[in-house]
Amino acid sequence: MILGVDPGLTRCGVGVIEAGANRRLSFIHVDVVRSDPHMSQDLRLLAIYNGLAAKIEEFAPDTVSIERVFAQENRNTVLGTAQAAGMAMLAAAQRNIPVALHTPTESKMAITGNGKAGKIQMERMVARLLNLNTLPTPADAADALAIAICHALRPAGALEGGEREQHLTPAQRQWAQAAQRANHGRGVKRGM
Amino acid sequence: MILGVDPGLTRCGVGVIEAGANRRLSFIHVDVVRSDPHMSQDLRLLAIYNGLAAKIEEFAPDTVSIERVFAQENRNTVLGTAQAAGMAMLAAAQRNIPVALHTPTESKMAITGNGKAGKIQMERMVARLLNLNTLPTPADAADALAIAICHALRPAGALEGGEREQHLTPAQRQWAQAAQRANHGRGVKRGM
Repeated sequence: MILGVDPGLTRCGVGVIEAGANRRLSFIHVDVVRSDPHMSQDLRLLAIYNGLAAKIEEFAPDTVSIERVFAQENRNTVLGTAQAAGMAMLAAAQRNIPVALHTPTESKMAITGNGKAGKIQMERMVARLLNLNTLPTPADAADALAIAICHALRPAGALEGGEREQHLTPAQRQWAQAAQRANHGRGVKRGM
Repeated sequence: MILGVDPGLTRCGVGVIEAGANRRLSFIHVDVVRSDPHMSQDLRLLAIYNGLAAKIEEFAPDTVSIERVFAQENRNTVLGTAQAAGMAMLAAAQRNIPVALHTPTESKMAITGNGKAGKIQMERMVARLLNLNTLPTPADAADALAIAICHALRPAGALEGGEREQHLTPAQRQWAQAAQRANHGRGVKRGM
């Protein structure tokens, strides 16, 4: 089971999926953990931590997959977003659950084959991959599912076992190859 | 008792002081909580959290005073610094201990009367205010003591009770007045 986190201080998306044989994915849970913008920063972080820790306790995932935060992002919110991601990392590390960080580009590439895919295209593919009849809402929750799916479809497995290649969708194969090229050029930079 | 934190992912300074009657300050403790740069981000945050939580448990301070992190700072380290500050906030909030954030400028102003004071001047004043015979080392630890002292000497008390004004050093009075002017202009922005 993979628990994906789209970090945010006001709204933190949480999406849980199961990745079975042949990379078959199933939807388990989606929710948004919130904090009150009128509270002080420390109490907001406590609310996010408590909410995420409760989800991790409830689902006991094998991996917590978190969207990587970049310093270049919106200056008004980036520190709070980084701190919310820190709460997710801490809650996972305290329970000995491995953490994976994935960039939005990796997530788009894994799910649509296009690292610059739009929001609607991503939501449609998330719904299709999880056999959902409707698009996942709200948007933060869809992003959290996408980050979980990204980890499930990451090329590591494909690179480890050649026989798995045949089960990859074209998008997955394209991503695996792009990642392979990137790794040859610059060394693997997964995980953190 | 006030526990000051100079946040950092690799080195997190911790300084503990007692602020008695007439703003008399005494040195209690200083240390640096570290994390191994070769470990993954989640395990580093866990190490910082555990180290800070242990200090907060040990000294049970009335306030945890943390240096405020700005998005404009060094892009390579700012997110880790913000996350380390988040660990300090969480550890305090979990124990119902109030958190105060102070900027480096506030700290310099409170301690030397000059918001642009140099490192050496700050360290000398920290040593003098705490009656230390030698400069506090390492530098992160001195900064943590400074952030604790800044909270002890913050102008709020001076503004609340006029009779305390006479006990203020010139630097403290100057800072109180500057803060008063700033607050009139832009509203109080202490705390968070």
